[in-house]
Amino acid sequence: MSTYEDLAYEVKDRVALLTLNRPDKLNAWTAAMEKSVKRAMAAAVADETVRVIVVTGAGRGFCAGADMNLLQSIKPGNWEDRDLATASREEKVDFASGLGPDVSPHYGGRFGYLMQVKKPIIAAINGPAAGLGLVFALYADMRFAGSEAKFTTSFASRGLIAEHGVSWLLPHLVGPARSLDLLMSARKVMADEAASMGLVNRVFPQENFMANVMDYARMLAETVSPRSMAVMKAQIWKALFQNFDEALAVGDSEMQKSFASADFKEGVAHFVEKRAANFTGQ
Amino acid sequence: MSTYEDLAYEVKDRVALLTLNRPDKLNAWTAAMEKSVKRAMAAAVADETVRVIVVTGAGRGFCAGADMNLLQSIKPGNWEDRDLATASREEKVDFASGLGPDVSPHYGGRFGYLMQVKKPIIAAINGPAAGLGLVFALYADMRFAGSEAKFTTSFASRGLIAEHGVSWLLPHLVGPARSLDLLMSARKVMADEAASMGLVNRVFPQENFMANVMDYARMLAETVSPRSMAVMKAQIWKALFQNFDEALAVGDSEMQKSFASADFKEGVAHFVEKRAANFTGQ
Amino acid sequence: MSTYEDLAYEVKDRVALLTLNRPDKLNAWTAAMEKSVKRAMAAAVADETVRVIVVTGAGRGFCAGADMNLLQSIKPGNWEDRDLATASREEKVDFASGLGPDVSPHYGGRFGYLMQVKKPIIAAINGPAAGLGLVFALYADMRFAGSEAKFTTSFASRGLIAEHGVSWLLPHLVGPARSLDLLMSARKVMADEAASMGLVNRVFPQENFMANVMDYARMLAETVSPRSMAVMKAQIWKALFQNFDEALAVGDSEMQKSFASADFKEGVAHFVEKRAANFTGQ
Repeated sequence: MSTYEDLAYEVKDRVALLTLNRPDKLNAWTAAMEKSVKRAMAAAVADETVRVIVVTGAGRGFCAGADMNLLQSIKPGNWEDRDLATASREEKVDFASGLGPDVSPHYGGRFGYLMQVKKPIIAAINGPAAGLGLVFALYADMRFAGSEAKFTTSFASRGLIAEHGVSWLLPHLVGPARSLDLLMSARKVMADEAASMGLVNRVFPQENFMANVMDYARMLAETVSPRSMAVMKAQIWKALFQNFDEALAVGDSEMQKSFASADFKEGVAHFVEKRAANFTGQ
Repeated sequence: MSTYEDLAYEVKDRVALLTLNRPDKLNAWTAAMEKSVKRAMAAAVADETVRVIVVTGAGRGFCAGADMNLLQSIKPGNWEDRDLATASREEKVDFASGLGPDVSPHYGGRFGYLMQVKKPIIAAINGPAAGLGLVFALYADMRFAGSEAKFTTSFASRGLIAEHGVSWLLPHLVGPARSLDLLMSARKVMADEAASMGLVNRVFPQENFMANVMDYARMLAETVSPRSMAVMKAQIWKALFQNFDEALAVGDSEMQKSFASADFKEGVAHFVEKRAANFTGQ
Repeated sequence: MSTYEDLAYEVKDRVALLTLNRPDKLNAWTAAMEKSVKRAMAAAVADETVRVIVVTGAGRGFCAGADMNLLQSIKPGNWEDRDLATASREEKVDFASGLGPDVSPHYGGRFGYLMQVKKPIIAAINGPAAGLGLVFALYADMRFAGSEAKFTTSFASRGLIAEHGVSWLLPHLVGPARSLDLLMSARKVMADEAASMGLVNRVFPQENFMANVMDYARMLAETVSPRSMAVMKAQIWKALFQNFDEALAVGDSEMQKSFASADFKEGVAHFVEKRAANFTGQ
């Protein structure tokens, strides 16, 4: 099933499932896991049968954050060498599909490549998501939570700060006041509150959580145009760096291109013929 | 009642009501309708008795999006000529009232003129709003929905993309994660969920939906200063392009001007005299 | 307890409590109150025992807005001299702690200094918050409301406009459509609706409102790093003026600094030793 350290990877029904895989440690983040995630994302991008990417955690947790052994070993000055932050940068992968506007100038760092992955990434938060584990989830395009999932930023409890771009991502998702509550208090937030503040898109009952997430993922894989999803993802992440008229110009240009696509032809045809769509992504 | 193609227009109690009027087609959008809406907006701006503008749909729908006959007729290259996008641009109307900061440099395209209309525009979404119909509603200053209204972006089902500025508007209203859910899935969202994610401001029971919307509209028309509303509308749409200190400077300048207005005098007087306000908009 | 005009100030359990203190006038805002708030904020910043700042109102109101006598006395041209806006500018205080990025270039005006206060500011909205009273609350890092609290922007009822930066702050908190509803209608919003639209973070039952707020404040004072809170506050308010990569670079730089802090050492140690944290803010 998997040749990835600290990660399981499988593809089924056009959905790539990445499972953070250190269940005895609530899937605490490691440098090896970070490399594996990036490699698996590259594999999912390259695999033409894959239309949607889901990330979840093995066992009862999603991701408990940076491994505590790692945090304990940090001394000022030695971080640069053993930096988690450099781990993922070693891998040079081109995630761009050439569809939609280019977002690569805007999203750097360890996780910014996820905005360039031209397939939807869904974080399926099955259990506790803490610190770096929560940050990672914020880079997904959408977040679904099991009803028993818990969330905490953790950093202020560790004497740390708003790490890895979360100071920018979080206010875009929940606004500055909720961000400050979440960051300063490091309090645990349950799934329902997380949904009410916009931290996750939706909550599913724990007992059939993954079944619901996979239903959604398959809906994306089967009923809408993969080409549309790729362009839309790039449009949205790009628009956060554009003014209205710039975003409008991209939309007008992409609309023209879409008219020439096989997926547009199919999009009208399946509707008129009242049948299921059969998009090819072309 | 109306001399507008595909649109009904009437004024009552200082409220202009625009009704998209192709009920047998769920008010699917046409080039004629687009021209009519722009003309009617110009009429509502010019009519000094009008203080609030409400847009709704005839029959059981709000707007089903671009007419399918139009979509079927599109071939790459022929769009430029028969473009819906050019329809509304033919009409040259000055919507600016000279009150508040100038937003015209920021909002171009087919619908950007709606941000310049210096009277509040309320979308009264009585039923299904799909594709271009939903996009149009997003340009309103506020959205109220009937409890049975449904929403879908549609585009990804048609092989299309985030059209007409929605890639910019939607994240400003609901954030990037909810935008990606709505755009990529093209799923149907019911009124209550739409309200919970901020896609609409409020839901009213279907059976007295329009009565509630008109109550709100009349409250604006009767109890607050039309001058205040015009300045505020321009301030808010302008502030999305300003930093804090720029927005503050506009506020300070507009505050000074408001002190010299008849509406400020009346605003203090009706409060002190404990009577209903009688604003003139001066 | 207090040497402040129109304000009570006390410190207990590492929490500074500022109480707007004109209960017979629902704590309507005065120039004296404004000066007192700024002086008290400076005192709270300077007091090393203080970790959290809470602002509330005496009696049954939070703040009814600008005092009506003041509004009645305004005549065009005479505002400059007796300007509330100049009152707080007389006080020259350096609120910056040197922790986190510098936000002072971004937040000017009467209240912008509150973003520079490097301790969390919680608005405890115990009752009606109107006009300037609501604006002031929007400058706090978080807002908690009693279940009977009411909110109104007021301005459009007075013939006024979106004053004192609210045209920028409000859309960042609740988006443009909810901002326009709140500003244009000047309608009264109850606590639950305020929470659902993001205007306040949380609602507590009226009967034990302040006890709940103080529990939260003490949680911040006792369980998380004051250094972390200071850096995070600056990061969030700064990030609203940064692109993703800029915010990321600040985070990377601040992360390095935090590794060298006593609070990080304590943050790991108390977790490993399974005991309560004892942060010093160093």
